[in-house]
Amino acid sequence: MKLTVKDMDIATGDVKVVLLNEKDARLLDLHPMDRVALNRNGRKTIAIVDVGESRKAVLPGHIGLFEEVLDELSTKHGEVVNVEVASKPESIGAIKRKLDGKHLTPKEIESIIRDIVDNKLTDIELTSFVIATYTRGMNTKEIVSLTRSLAQTGDVLRIKKYPVVDLHSIGGVPGNRSTMVIVPILVAAGCIVPKTSSRAITSPSGTADTMEVLAPVQIPLRKLNKIIDDVGGFIIWGGAVNLAPADDKIINIEHPLSIDAEGQMLASIMAKKASVGATHLLMEIPIGRGAKVPDKRGAKHLAKHFAELGNILHIKVKTVIADGSQPVGRGIGPVLEARDVLWTLKEDKRAPQDLVSKSVEQAGILLEFTGKSKPGKGKALAQQLLSTGAAWGAMCKIIEAQGGKPPNPEKLLPARETFTLKAKKNGKIKTIETALIAKVGRLAGAPLDPDAGVYLHKTCGEPVHKGERILTVYARNKNKLAFAIKALLKERVEII
Amino acid sequence: MKLTVKDMDIATGDVKVVLLNEKDARLLDLHPMDRVALNRNGRKTIAIVDVGESRKAVLPGHIGLFEEVLDELSTKHGEVVNVEVASKPESIGAIKRKLDGKHLTPKEIESIIRDIVDNKLTDIELTSFVIATYTRGMNTKEIVSLTRSLAQTGDVLRIKKYPVVDLHSIGGVPGNRSTMVIVPILVAAGCIVPKTSSRAITSPSGTADTMEVLAPVQIPLRKLNKIIDDVGGFIIWGGAVNLAPADDKIINIEHPLSIDAEGQMLASIMAKKASVGATHLLMEIPIGRGAKVPDKRGAKHLAKHFAELGNILHIKVKTVIADGSQPVGRGIGPVLEARDVLWTLKEDKRAPQDLVSKSVEQAGILLEFTGKSKPGKGKALAQQLLSTGAAWGAMCKIIEAQGGKPPNPEKLLPARETFTLKAKKNGKIKTIETALIAKVGRLAGAPLDPDAGVYLHKTCGEPVHKGERILTVYARNKNKLAFAIKALLKERVEII
Repeated sequence: MKLTVKDMDIATGDVKVVLLNEKDARLLDLHPMDRVALNRNGRKTIAIVDVGESRKAVLPGHIGLFEEVLDELSTKHGEVVNVEVASKPESIGAIKRKLDGKHLTPKEIESIIRDIVDNKLTDIELTSFVIATYTRGMNTKEIVSLTRSLAQTGDVLRIKKYPVVDLHSIGGVPGNRSTMVIVPILVAAGCIVPKTSSRAITSPSGTADTMEVLAPVQIPLRKLNKIIDDVGGFIIWGGAVNLAPADDKIINIEHPLSIDAEGQMLASIMAKKASVGATHLLMEIPIGRGAKVPDKRGAKHLAKHFAELGNILHIKVKTVIADGSQPVGRGIGPVLEARDVLWTLKEDKRAPQDLVSKSVEQAGILLEFTGKSKPGKGKALAQQLLSTGAAWGAMCKIIEAQGGKPPNPEKLLPARETFTLKAKKNGKIKTIETALIAKVGRLAGAPLDPDAGVYLHKTCGEPVHKGERILTVYARNKNKLAFAIKALLKERVEII
Repeated sequence: MKLTVKDMDIATGDVKVVLLNEKDARLLDLHPMDRVALNRNGRKTIAIVDVGESRKAVLPGHIGLFEEVLDELSTKHGEVVNVEVASKPESIGAIKRKLDGKHLTPKEIESIIRDIVDNKLTDIELTSFVIATYTRGMNTKEIVSLTRSLAQTGDVLRIKKYPVVDLHSIGGVPGNRSTMVIVPILVAAGCIVPKTSSRAITSPSGTADTMEVLAPVQIPLRKLNKIIDDVGGFIIWGGAVNLAPADDKIINIEHPLSIDAEGQMLASIMAKKASVGATHLLMEIPIGRGAKVPDKRGAKHLAKHFAELGNILHIKVKTVIADGSQPVGRGIGPVLEARDVLWTLKEDKRAPQDLVSKSVEQAGILLEFTGKSKPGKGKALAQQLLSTGAAWGAMCKIIEAQGGKPPNPEKLLPARETFTLKAKKNGKIKTIETALIAKVGRLAGAPLDPDAGVYLHKTCGEPVHKGERILTVYARNKNKLAFAIKALLKERVEII
């Protein structure tokens, strides 16, 4: 059927959709979510049908096209395109089988992931797949196939050196910037560390946000290999490279429902490690209140799965279980966290001791794990690389390679408006709720205002005297500060 | 945050969506699929956020509104609305619980169905619910709650008479127009029969399409009670009344994946019966090749569930298992089927015998079931109501009440272009594939061209002589006829 193009003048951003008038849809026997093959002078594409009942949406004899389809057919308003019924992609059959509790073959899983990357599935179809894998679960074979498919359908970093080290922490702990200390220690020891990190979603800063204070983090793939060759490592925002792109779309489905399918999570994490060619992986599983994994049993269960999956994918995995109930470091927010990191790398006396010890410990594990140090000597080597300034030097080179200026913690100034919470009696800080601190930091403006955030003068368990400072909130204006203070004072920091 | 309205100039048709520029979304800490509360001079609504990355979609400081939201806020292009972050509806928590395999309370199910009706859920959320009930299943309590919620969130027909009879066949058999014979027989016997039917989705005609040949089938709710009072029954298109509206949205999710969750199906059917206040229900379960239910075991399993559900909902349910592998009647397509129905009601010699016997049998069951006849005498009473012209008279009154003209089968002429398939040898018709006949009928133009379709001169098992007519295809133009013939000749009607 020939239909005249109506330019809808907006982009759908994702799946290709066309709008048909109800009458034409009936003539073509098409229903919403069916597919049509469009053809204009030999340029072809497949799109999903939406049906408009009113003449206002689209007139009979016309077809509403959005930006993506207009571009793909290189057509414009008023031109004529040929429209025919198209069949559903084969991956729908595979999704259906998963819904019915069947196990999928590697080929089936690949067809689904390929179609997700190519924007060929509707939200309904994609959601069905995600929910089916959540409620039906996946066996190890399926998780391996999913991991491989996720990695193979995106960009891949080809590194010929050894060892290629990666580290990962499941679920965020605010201020947990040990990654930015561990990476330069490992690089200083001769490891290759292609670290992709995420931006904050619900926290005041992600590793990528904090690193961005020091250097650009959106770096195209072709430059990354050169940085690896020149420096041995980087810390970038994973969102700017096209690693395992289907994964982001799957997470977008899970996010509104706050579900976290175990198989998906395992595959999602391991696919990104496979894309960067990791040979050794340190997996941190924080447990406790507010962490994703509630207890040791859950952590051990996950550790087993990661090891199993790593074994098949030729990635050596070591797991550490950490306390996820407390912030690590004293600064919360991009600038304050970056300052903590630099103080730590410079061995400044203001370096937060928990950040130092955590970083040295985990770097030590990785140094032993990769054979860069003898068994039992990793921690000492890590400490040495820190003390000699080797790690600081590596960080400076990484920052320079990514296009940043020479780092200087004294130039990292928090925002101007401040509020300081002081102790009303002598005692000991009982707990500092990570969730509360995260909320206060975000309300103060982080991560969008990188210099906003919270600085903890006292940490959990520390003794405190009446009138002493417990924490300071930083914000760019009085309005944001007021919001943050309000949230802070609602649930006080308890002193016992 | 105050944002300036951009009129997107189209309707989304369903869920309320607003489009924000990426920058404003970041400032408000909003992600796609989050919700915002909009307020303009006290008029409020909640909408789902979509985020546009380009300035073309929507400029920073602006908000793209679609028709539904513009109307609801009574605002227009260039005006300013207030935008605030809104929380997710409570039903999301219930959906989440179902995903995790929990059983839902009646209150939880009602909150979900209410939000579906009110367009408060995104496709992702709605799909998650549908898929979760499919993969996790529902227990009887949940199905009962779902049935009640589906019925209560739509219009309800309040009939004070007794008995109110309904009949239902699971999954379509082409030409299966016995409903249009059974309804007038029952009405003639003094039963109340508020029959809502569907239009064709994949068949050449639904009951509503066939009835529409004789009378209007889109009748507003307020007129239906009057028709019941005056005549005792009607046969209308269910899509024109707002009975169990959430059900249609659930079916729209299931359709693209061709899934049919048993619990959903049970609730969907029974909710519509509850909405019309049925006291007695005859449920036909066709089995065999091409039917939804493959065998007797499956049919019995369903029958048990319908009875159980009916018991709780105070609807008496009787089940009959039928042969679903063969067309019933000789005409396929709205006009041809309507002619079969009228011939049957007039006891014309051209009436298809299978349609007559099926109708009389099922009407007989219902007459006994409702106490309108003594046990064992139902079929005879049905036959008598047919023979005396009582059923014909009732049908004429129903047609008149719905606004149709006096019916006359001789005026029901099939389309002009014809092709007749003749036997190439003596023998017996082996099978007439319902799927093939349905396809040929649709390609010939049915149901959009009501006079298009197929007429079966011979039915399955009938002897046939060389040169005798087997079937005739009717179409409005040569083009459509050619398509139909091509499909027909690809898979021949076998003679043995």
